[in-house]
Amino acid sequence: MVHLAKGTRDLLPETMIRRQAVVEILTEVFARYGFAPQCTPAIERIETLTGKYGDDGEKLIYRILKRGEGGKRGEVDLALRYDLTVPLARVVAMNPDLRMPFKRYQVQPVWRADRPQKGRFREFYQCDVDTVGTTDPISDAECLAVLSDCLKALGFSEFSIRLNHRALLSAMVAEVGASEGETGVLVALDKLDKIGKDGVDAELQGQGLSHAARDRLWGLLEVPLGAPGADALDHLETELGEVASEAVASMRQVLALSHGMGVDPAHLSFDPTLARGLDYYTGPVFEAVIREGNIGSIAGGGRYDGLIGMFCKRDVPAVGISLGLERILVVMDELGMFEDVRSQTKVLVTVFSPELQAQSLEAVTHLRAAGINAQISMDSGKLGKQFKRADSLGIPYAVVIGPDEAAAGTVVLKDLASGEQVTMGLERVVEAVLS
Amino acid sequence: MVHLAKGTRDLLPETMIRRQAVVEILTEVFARYGFAPQCTPAIERIETLTGKYGDDGEKLIYRILKRGEGGKRGEVDLALRYDLTVPLARVVAMNPDLRMPFKRYQVQPVWRADRPQKGRFREFYQCDVDTVGTTDPISDAECLAVLSDCLKALGFSEFSIRLNHRALLSAMVAEVGASEGETGVLVALDKLDKIGKDGVDAELQGQGLSHAARDRLWGLLEVPLGAPGADALDHLETELGEVASEAVASMRQVLALSHGMGVDPAHLSFDPTLARGLDYYTGPVFEAVIREGNIGSIAGGGRYDGLIGMFCKRDVPAVGISLGLERILVVMDELGMFEDVRSQTKVLVTVFSPELQAQSLEAVTHLRAAGINAQISMDSGKLGKQFKRADSLGIPYAVVIGPDEAAAGTVVLKDLASGEQVTMGLERVVEAVLS
Repeated sequence: MVHLAKGTRDLLPETMIRRQAVVEILTEVFARYGFAPQCTPAIERIETLTGKYGDDGEKLIYRILKRGEGGKRGEVDLALRYDLTVPLARVVAMNPDLRMPFKRYQVQPVWRADRPQKGRFREFYQCDVDTVGTTDPISDAECLAVLSDCLKALGFSEFSIRLNHRALLSAMVAEVGASEGETGVLVALDKLDKIGKDGVDAELQGQGLSHAARDRLWGLLEVPLGAPGADALDHLETELGEVASEAVASMRQVLALSHGMGVDPAHLSFDPTLARGLDYYTGPVFEAVIREGNIGSIAGGGRYDGLIGMFCKRDVPAVGISLGLERILVVMDELGMFEDVRSQTKVLVTVFSPELQAQSLEAVTHLRAAGINAQISMDSGKLGKQFKRADSLGIPYAVVIGPDEAAAGTVVLKDLASGEQVTMGLERVVEAVLS
Repeated sequence: MVHLAKGTRDLLPETMIRRQAVVEILTEVFARYGFAPQCTPAIERIETLTGKYGDDGEKLIYRILKRGEGGKRGEVDLALRYDLTVPLARVVAMNPDLRMPFKRYQVQPVWRADRPQKGRFREFYQCDVDTVGTTDPISDAECLAVLSDCLKALGFSEFSIRLNHRALLSAMVAEVGASEGETGVLVALDKLDKIGKDGVDAELQGQGLSHAARDRLWGLLEVPLGAPGADALDHLETELGEVASEAVASMRQVLALSHGMGVDPAHLSFDPTLARGLDYYTGPVFEAVIREGNIGSIAGGGRYDGLIGMFCKRDVPAVGISLGLERILVVMDELGMFEDVRSQTKVLVTVFSPELQAQSLEAVTHLRAAGINAQISMDSGKLGKQFKRADSLGIPYAVVIGPDEAAAGTVVLKDLASGEQVTMGLERVVEAVLS
């Protein structure tokens, strides 16, 4: 018996139709904002990827054996793409003529030799949207507007986009004086949604944060914990003073620009408890959460001005979002958001008998010429079996041309869901199916 | 300096826009005929691919080192997809519930460690359309109709689809009595387009084919060499008799069905000199040739009833076509068939000055809400620089809102190709850009 590689899957037609619909909706929004499509190769030189993902990430890179040209046995010179950010950095370094700001999106698979588990695959798609080469806050606000438009276009109504600033996180941690650097505090804070205030507090205590320091932290977060938003920003500004003023101003500006781009304030709020992607974000950070069904984050991003320049030995500012395509698909399925479209074929033209095949061929050709996706039965057999095929494939209509219809120049259109059958001319079939 | 892996390339926005347009046209035609999308993983178990592509092919398979789980150093357990046919066979074997006939298309990259050269890459896309599980000649004819519709939809007018039958090739070779099996004769015959009758004749002589045998061969091909088509079929039937009758009948039926599906007889002809893919085709074989600019074959296929069952230990009939996506793109570019669309963005909304940014933001948001792809200038600077950006990106229009326009509630729409500027309301901009 033959098997798939562990952690991979085939995308058969019914799955593909849903994926394509979602990707089409997302990329339409990206293009609306002026982001352009880009693809990079699945295979990169090994030295392009090593040293970029930390020790844990590096172990997950798939390495490819060198072929031909007298490579030593077992020598590795290539690797599979691990994310879409390092390839973007390579593209920027290799194409000095790119017009800045460079706005691109990229929807492609990446490969990680991770332990496979439910919903986690070794080959999965990432969906990244980035603006490179500018620090203009419009580029930050556009990320929020794109996120909001994407979620609305997909059909989500109950979602929150949370916004924070890396400098505010640092200022808060400095304020409470964490002895072991800020990472521990932020990692704990990031779990607020999952383990609640008491859980985070216990974790901070475990990290050796004093009672006074923890009190101070909760004091800073008092307002946001009650109702995140502009009040929280005022509160932090008052509490932290000068050290936070630049970041507070940046947050105010990004919020105002986002609202100017049509983001509903009910969907977007400043939230100083948002603490994601600590390692490389340098400015605003954001995250989108679906409120229906306790689903959590399905997209996130932020400004990372230190990363894209890695191959050009200079700083290249960048801000972007990454949408969790695989997660979005699972969530939409769980919430029953997909229409029941299992086939792109609208009509199965049956073949009544070998003698009447020519009439069916003419009919299917006519429907196709009218822009209707249509199949004709092969190895036809009994009509009942043909209807069953259409139904099992999710094709909504069948056309039948028996001797009577052939003589009259008509066809029977059968709605396979209702079972209703009407005799009509082909032109009316076109109208009925397109309507 | 950072580099691409040898034989790979980045697909930057301008290239991607063309590719996406071509793929969209092709997949629309596929769907029109009831073919459904499918994707398979880039990585397959090594044993799924070995022993499938001959010694020469096998050397070109990229092998991936086993990761984690205590694999021995240097152990290989995975490989990169080499074509789309073996994965299709695997899908058929692993999904016994697939409804037959199974009609799928697949447009995905494959990887071959081939020597890179102009126009030949180590990562390139294949575009396959197959019907599995039926020997109904409608499935053969559909391949020809899909090919014809694809080429017409792409904008080709001068093309020929050539049709032959594997059994006729075998019968012809048997008739002239090639001593070293049929492959040598067919390989020589396949070069007829390139090296002409004299060249092929010399090659056959070199293979030891007698003068009499060569005369007999040219006699069989006499009519087709003059004017391929139905006459050639009659001629072969007369000359070869009983041994060819089944294949001749099959050719007649496939031609009639194709014409019934709307394939122009001027675009499709029987051609007994077509000798492609000798190894695994078992029935009709076909090839599409662009006549403009001496370009040669850009798509081909045939019936291969022995291959798809490789993993299920039974025969599973199949017929399909493979369109040379990379070649089609090169040819369309050479023939100047692409519209000059370098950007999907229709409008750049400039920012006149920081004080007027809010008005520009409102305008770009309005345009986007009306379904127009629009960018707003970032780090704006002088208007001339902003126009230059739009022009260099291939954005056709710019919108300007200066103090006068802001006061009057109007905008200036500038056509960047003609330089023409008109002052109007935003609603008229929407109409002008969408028209």
